[in-house]
Amino acid sequence: MPGEFDFISWVRSQQAADDLVQLPAGDDLAVLRWPSSDLLLIGVDQVLDGVHFDAGVHPPRAIGRKVMNRNLSDCAAMGCLPAAAVATVALPFGGTLDYAKELYHGLREAGDPYRCRIVGGDTASWGGKLAVTVTILGSSEGVAPVTRKGARPGDGIYVTGSLGGSILGRHMTFEPRVQLGRSLAENGIASAMIDLSDGLSRDLAHICEQSGVGAIVEAEAVPIHADVARLPADGRTPLQHALHDGEDYELLFTSAVPFAQVIHIGRIVKEPGVWLLREGQAEALTPMGWEHRI
Amino acid sequence: MPGEFDFISWVRSQQAADDLVQLPAGDDLAVLRWPSSDLLLIGVDQVLDGVHFDAGVHPPRAIGRKVMNRNLSDCAAMGCLPAAAVATVALPFGGTLDYAKELYHGLREAGDPYRCRIVGGDTASWGGKLAVTVTILGSSEGVAPVTRKGARPGDGIYVTGSLGGSILGRHMTFEPRVQLGRSLAENGIASAMIDLSDGLSRDLAHICEQSGVGAIVEAEAVPIHADVARLPADGRTPLQHALHDGEDYELLFTSAVPFAQVIHIGRIVKEPGVWLLREGQAEALTPMGWEHRI
Repeated sequence: MPGEFDFISWVRSQQAADDLVQLPAGDDLAVLRWPSSDLLLIGVDQVLDGVHFDAGVHPPRAIGRKVMNRNLSDCAAMGCLPAAAVATVALPFGGTLDYAKELYHGLREAGDPYRCRIVGGDTASWGGKLAVTVTILGSSEGVAPVTRKGARPGDGIYVTGSLGGSILGRHMTFEPRVQLGRSLAENGIASAMIDLSDGLSRDLAHICEQSGVGAIVEAEAVPIHADVARLPADGRTPLQHALHDGEDYELLFTSAVPFAQVIHIGRIVKEPGVWLLREGQAEALTPMGWEHRI
Repeated sequence: MPGEFDFISWVRSQQAADDLVQLPAGDDLAVLRWPSSDLLLIGVDQVLDGVHFDAGVHPPRAIGRKVMNRNLSDCAAMGCLPAAAVATVALPFGGTLDYAKELYHGLREAGDPYRCRIVGGDTASWGGKLAVTVTILGSSEGVAPVTRKGARPGDGIYVTGSLGGSILGRHMTFEPRVQLGRSLAENGIASAMIDLSDGLSRDLAHICEQSGVGAIVEAEAVPIHADVARLPADGRTPLQHALHDGEDYELLFTSAVPFAQVIHIGRIVKEPGVWLLREGQAEALTPMGWEHRI
């Protein structure tokens, strides 16, 4: 973009040092002092025009919020607390300083409620489409991270909300389940956890694979979001949408402890494989989830 | 790309836990135990098709190496040691698993000599051009990071190699000056340091601005790379190329201590501004460096 260095100066002016951030963005690297008692969790996620958003439809602030929220959702799924982030923006030629600022405001709007500081970034203009990435650092702060490996036969399978049809808008506007994920970790409730980005069928398969177990999902128990009824007819049933649509950003977890505030949808079994139990009949639940294409 | 999940599985199989990495890539986030005595340095850099490389010309392994080396060069400029990285790849539709693996091999080829572990990533296919990002974590390991703020009037200005014409190939093949940067920090030689990505005129201005000082560069002392003579004629002098071309990835630093192994090109002064001293005459050295476009 014209004035790339103006943008970098502006971003720099938005930042301050604190206990964690010894030297904020503006040098070759930012300098953090990580608390010695805390594990450092790290991951990265990108959003791409035409895949995760449509730059012709979605305003830059919503795009910024989405990419930050995807990363916050990863923190939720590990039960850790967001601490800091760095971002990149690849901006199509002709993009304005105001547009870039709106992207940044979106990142901040999503991150600020969780005290997730933006400590660095890189921006460039190019002859390509808009791409934004966020790398997030989360902190364990006294709670062991919940992985995908801990599911055990006999555990119940739970989701934190209803599923399907997020394409109608929720994929841009979801709230990451940071506090709920933290609470599930803190209280030792979740034995394994993941956030539902790829779709229940695929994400449950990830847990099963990593934990070396299988799962049975009860068809009648899967909560179907009201959005599904508003989808244009495409030959798929409401249950299929709830099982496969993806980008719900609810938490999917397993637990040996019954937990009332969430929705019980099935159980972990010893035999590998993911099964859908419908009217007493088990059928293979083949992962058909979202592979990152709008 | 077709088989995105195959690629993620493959990447996962390339990784292992160690003292730093408690849980490698493959969960929502990787889990690190950061040594309590070490500062954590973090930054992110991206390379974009048509700006930082040409996907029609440069093989994926070279592209992967470049983006990792840009980040390693940031570590060099702070005098810290690379420790871990996460990467994103936005791959044009039709990209193959082999192409993605070659990108990853390039990242590893550059990072492995410095024990920089790749602990996470995100990959997606899209209708856009190739974009690759790397976020790097560096560790102070007992040496205070060198910032851009420490230049003082009277300091000498130094570069670690000759400049200009990197567009002929060196911008893809440079070696990051990690050991040299570390040595300059460890021995208290560099008072301020930056890596030359935007061009000497612009990067020196960054140091002056952050340090609240000015600089005088001696025209005759600026080392001109042999590549400059091989550039097609464009009306610019060899010195102009050395001052403004960018993507040299040499270190530019200031020091109160004369240092023989590098090239002395000028001195820091109290008055703001960057000046070029030619045949006894000072002229303003206006930043005209690289703004990220091939």
